Amino acid sequence: MTDAVSLIQRKRDGGTLTDAEIRWLFTAYADDEVADEQMSALLMAIFFQGMDTAELRTWTAAMIDSGDRLDLSPVTRPTVDKHSTGGVGDKVSLILAPLVAACGAAVPQLSGRGLGHTGGTLDKLDAIPGFTSALSPERTIQILQEAGAVIAAAGSGLAPADRRLYALRDVTGTVESIPLIASSIMSKKIAEGTESLVLDVKVGTGAFMKSYDKARQLAQTMVTLGREHGVRTAALLTRMDQPLGNAVGNAVEVEESVQALQGNGPPDLMRVTYALAERMLALAGINADPREKIASGAAYEAYRAMIRAQGGDPEARLRQAPHTKVITAATTGWLASLDALGVGVAAWRLGAGRARKEDPVSAAAGIICLAKPGDKLTRGEPVLELRADDERRFAAAEQALDQAIVIEADQPPPPPDPVIELIEG
Amino acid sequence: MTDAVSLIQRKRDGGTLTDAEIRWLFTAYADDEVADEQMSALLMAIFFQGMDTAELRTWTAAMIDSGDRLDLSPVTRPTVDKHSTGGVGDKVSLILAPLVAACGAAVPQLSGRGLGHTGGTLDKLDAIPGFTSALSPERTIQILQEAGAVIAAAGSGLAPADRRLYALRDVTGTVESIPLIASSIMSKKIAEGTESLVLDVKVGTGAFMKSYDKARQLAQTMVTLGREHGVRTAALLTRMDQPLGNAVGNAVEVEESVQALQGNGPPDLMRVTYALAERMLALAGINADPREKIASGAAYEAYRAMIRAQGGDPEARLRQAPHTKVITAATTGWLASLDALGVGVAAWRLGAGRARKEDPVSAAAGIICLAKPGDKLTRGEPVLELRADDERRFAAAEQALDQAIVIEADQPPPPPDPVIELIEG
Repeated sequence: MTDAVSLIQRKRDGGTLTDAEIRWLFTAYADDEVADEQMSALLMAIFFQGMDTAELRTWTAAMIDSGDRLDLSPVTRPTVDKHSTGGVGDKVSLILAPLVAACGAAVPQLSGRGLGHTGGTLDKLDAIPGFTSALSPERTIQILQEAGAVIAAAGSGLAPADRRLYALRDVTGTVESIPLIASSIMSKKIAEGTESLVLDVKVGTGAFMKSYDKARQLAQTMVTLGREHGVRTAALLTRMDQPLGNAVGNAVEVEESVQALQGNGPPDLMRVTYALAERMLALAGINADPREKIASGAAYEAYRAMIRAQGGDPEARLRQAPHTKVITAATTGWLASLDALGVGVAAWRLGAGRARKEDPVSAAAGIICLAKPGDKLTRGEPVLELRADDERRFAAAEQALDQAIVIEADQPPPPPDPVIELIEG
Repeated sequence: MTDAVSLIQRKRDGGTLTDAEIRWLFTAYADDEVADEQMSALLMAIFFQGMDTAELRTWTAAMIDSGDRLDLSPVTRPTVDKHSTGGVGDKVSLILAPLVAACGAAVPQLSGRGLGHTGGTLDKLDAIPGFTSALSPERTIQILQEAGAVIAAAGSGLAPADRRLYALRDVTGTVESIPLIASSIMSKKIAEGTESLVLDVKVGTGAFMKSYDKARQLAQTMVTLGREHGVRTAALLTRMDQPLGNAVGNAVEVEESVQALQGNGPPDLMRVTYALAERMLALAGINADPREKIASGAAYEAYRAMIRAQGGDPEARLRQAPHTKVITAATTGWLASLDALGVGVAAWRLGAGRARKEDPVSAAAGIICLAKPGDKLTRGEPVLELRADDERRFAAAEQALDQAIVIEADQPPPPPDPVIELIEG
């Protein structure tokens, strides 16, 4: 007979769990026969001992099978999605979904809310009057079919075991485990039913993964998991040492996304967006030029169709923050670095992010980067514009920015390509 | 502000917890502000990362301070106790407590019940008609003062945090951690109020610690902990590859203990008993010869006084099992080994032990070893006598003994000294 204690001990001592044992574990956990304290001890043992390929495949499958799978078979176009591990100023999904839709794919973006210093796609779109991300599976598929893209909240029916495990990991110090992160992300994406998937795995100060090696390992683990479950999967490692683009927040990121769709996006943001778009189109087997879809206005048109289908007014003026404060250059020189983590935490403290998942966020709060690394600055010249609903928030935000702006006398080398590497297996 | 998740993460990542953090943890756990799933994740992190000397000292102190300390100051004789990590046929406490009392010390044995294949001192004494181990602190001290020895159940007031943590470790696969074992044992022994303490750390197939290195590390950790808390502490490492003495069970072990107190104990049992007695007397500063106290009958007299003071009849005939079965030698040769674990599990299956702490045990069930390693055997000659209340138990017991009896054609070297090493710091 399988029992929780012997499974925990085996994993603790470096052994492996069989398919049947992992399946039993998830069933027994759902039935409350395995207690939270047993699961958390097992998660900590997994943190130390890891999981091999077979264990991880079954672990992920058990999480998928704990709930429903979206059936995207009614969608006639090839389906392809993208998932980012989260960054500062990462509004790529808002641009990419309509852009790839304009190229002929169907993009079923089931997304989440932000937590901590990284923003969530749904929080950003909520800044648009009328927009809703709470869609039934039927309506999700209908919009996908009609508009070619949909950005909706992942329903509670998808991988509910992941929801419970994630909540447990969050309070037991077992979040930072590559197999647990990989299975959490991939169980939801596989349950979503997409045929192809491109992962944007961020690495750097503002990313969840600070080290290149860990980010690469996570990317490879997820690509393997996706392929084992029949999803064509690839990953890009991209830099997250400075904010992506110039806007960090909710409404401000929607505005920057619209500018990008209209052909006026900042170079680092467009570099990452096009790299992901090209990889998505390659996996979907579509031969199209995303740059042309921006230039022709087709991508922006797809955006408007998607926003309208989800109840939003794509032309509406977004709420502006009543209070702004400009941070200026303390010395003359070159901006050597603009730390993503510092800017992310500052935007969070201004009201753009949340500490707990039940907290509200401000649509209007955020930060505009008026200079980016490599720019020449004169003492007193604006570097950042902070925006908040309540001016008492500025002090805490400025504290987070204390070490974030580094100006040097010598011209730094040009910033490296934000796209580091493609991982295909 | 201290929070559970950051303490778990720090320990997980190899850091150390401060005194204040450990104190906070125990208070918050008692107040249910730290949840069981958080504590179990921390315990698993401790399993992997250990605790340094300062952490372990504070961890143990926090467990002691979670409850009462027995105040033995009314006792006029020097107080000295002994604790065994548990073995098969380990009835040493029953002999040692009155023996050391007869030498002039006071022995406050607060003991526990057996679990699994190792017996518990209280279960053995319960085989004596009228005997009770449930004593108030006042009565415990009174008997200690009058009889010089008392063997009582550790009350729920002593180290209640250990009770809760142990129950959690038991179901979460976090029992086998040296700092956690050491703090669990020592918190109870220090709370018991004894001035001196000798630890019998068993090593071998029938012991909790199978490896010499781990046993030695546990002994050293406990000796350090005792000294840091003001208890004169030493440890003996002793072998537990074969049963200690000849009887394994409850009533049968009481009978063998009485024989030992009357001068007829088997050599391996007496070797361990005298080694522990000498160390206890040395720590207590008493110059007396335990062999002389056995020979004169003083030790047996002290035993009778203790049993009577606890309501028992030391002369009563103990209940005998209605069913016996003899296991004979399969071949002619020398008994090369009689595996302690096999014999312990067999006795447990016969009814002498329990799987869960609420299970009852049989007073009469058990095993008598009719031969010991090094003895010459003729094919068909008795090796073990199994005793049970229900003869249907014999089959499962015999199964456990399948590999336990090893007879070889060549005469084996004499069994090694059961006392391996003295650890004094």
